[in-house]
Amino acid sequence: MIPTEFNRKIAEIRDDRVRGASELARFGLVILAQAARELPAATVGEWWEGLSALAVDLAEARPSMTPLSHLLRRWREGAAIEADMNLAAARQVAAARAEVLIEQSRRAVADCAARVAELVGAGRTLMTHSFSSTVLESCRLLKEAGLRMIVTESRPLEEGRRLAEQLSVWKVPTVYITDAQMALFVARADAVLVGADSVLADGAVLNKAGTALLALAARERGVPFYVACESFKWRDAADPPPVLEEMAPAELGVPTWPDVTVRNLYFEVTPARLISAWIDEAGVRRIAG
Amino acid sequence: MIPTEFNRKIAEIRDDRVRGASELARFGLVILAQAARELPAATVGEWWEGLSALAVDLAEARPSMTPLSHLLRRWREGAAIEADMNLAAARQVAAARAEVLIEQSRRAVADCAARVAELVGAGRTLMTHSFSSTVLESCRLLKEAGLRMIVTESRPLEEGRRLAEQLSVWKVPTVYITDAQMALFVARADAVLVGADSVLADGAVLNKAGTALLALAARERGVPFYVACESFKWRDAADPPPVLEEMAPAELGVPTWPDVTVRNLYFEVTPARLISAWIDEAGVRRIAG
Repeated sequence: MIPTEFNRKIAEIRDDRVRGASELARFGLVILAQAARELPAATVGEWWEGLSALAVDLAEARPSMTPLSHLLRRWREGAAIEADMNLAAARQVAAARAEVLIEQSRRAVADCAARVAELVGAGRTLMTHSFSSTVLESCRLLKEAGLRMIVTESRPLEEGRRLAEQLSVWKVPTVYITDAQMALFVARADAVLVGADSVLADGAVLNKAGTALLALAARERGVPFYVACESFKWRDAADPPPVLEEMAPAELGVPTWPDVTVRNLYFEVTPARLISAWIDEAGVRRIAG
Repeated sequence: MIPTEFNRKIAEIRDDRVRGASELARFGLVILAQAARELPAATVGEWWEGLSALAVDLAEARPSMTPLSHLLRRWREGAAIEADMNLAAARQVAAARAEVLIEQSRRAVADCAARVAELVGAGRTLMTHSFSSTVLESCRLLKEAGLRMIVTESRPLEEGRRLAEQLSVWKVPTVYITDAQMALFVARADAVLVGADSVLADGAVLNKAGTALLALAARERGVPFYVACESFKWRDAADPPPVLEEMAPAELGVPTWPDVTVRNLYFEVTPARLISAWIDEAGVRRIAG
């Protein structure tokens, strides 16, 4: 049985509407490292069983978030726990493995943002939708290079506010708009840059609802559409189809009307043919269209 | 000088964010009819000068709203006031002219909705954006014919609420979504139906921001995109280019951040090539694309 403290943290991941997929994946590994050290157990077998169950629960807390399941799988595959290990040593190995992956994930985001900054260059206006820590880090790298931003509010919970607030702190000239104004403003951008919750094997991108609209508007106006995310987010062809999470209708803030169903799908798939380039920590990929 | 009472009513039109262009145009004519009867004046010349100034102020209160300026122009052109008329008679003629136009406008909306209902037919799912009295009337005509609706909230002031509320009263099964979910839901509709604030001479449609996004998403999924509006809303090629009104940034409900500019453009132009058909009181027009 997983102690209450860890179940509370799983619930924290499930209910989080602020952090992006990479941040939550790292938070999942932090929880796992702590559990590796602290999970009560008499034997390595018992401890490993509990820890494995926790890893499954963590991955299932956010089924749309590929980095979480990818990093947890890599953790499990690479943890190299032997049945004859002593429990204290096993705890150290498993926790250290999680911490290495946290560091790799962090470095991948930083390297990915560096590739974005090289691609975009100085004096550009970028438009984005929703909140992505990779996009945020790209902005940080470009903030003294004449970057200008166009940020959508991103309903229902308006993650765009968090981005606009940070851009303001960095003094990056920013335009903040409703999602509905995307087509009006996209032509003022040199490029669109979005993060991703995951990328399917064919290059289609799973990201916040509204991303496909922005991609359509960008294509219509001839504005390049870039997706920046570390390789942990790319799904294998063998992965099961992504789950499109639906959140509470109450987030839209309307009353309950008979015969009216409020829908709150968080994610949508933007097809690869609407994407100009994918940027990960290794560089820029383009798929000939 | 225009008495305070009428200036207050002009301000009511300027600040109205609920009523559509046709409704506001008729409200403008109601104000004009009242002013025709009540405006203090010693002579027909003085009275007509005051009334004409009021008509100009009314038209300028909402420069994006073509029916308002079109109906006021038709009123002025058709009022047939002669300098030698007696003042009491002139008041009657001018007020009656406004009332005839109110009735024509109302009938045009009803006839337009009847044409929409014929085109759409029974058992269909329609998707719309923003609030249009023509779309509402079309829904009323189809509500016992198995109509289903998909309604966007339409930020920032969420006119979609008003529509969803009425559809609920009529027991029309309705799905209510954020604007950002348009691309996710458009494929579930048999057609998109929107109203218009005005239609340019080439068929491009001026309507609430977000309309062009919905038109792009509809084209992508092969869903017909219909625009329903009475002929009063069609602009002549000689009309000046439409003004795209911008409303208060405060409507977005975010704090003031240094270096962040909040934009709140209400209207956008959806090009004619994204529109499958235009429906007015006379019937359905299609422009070969």
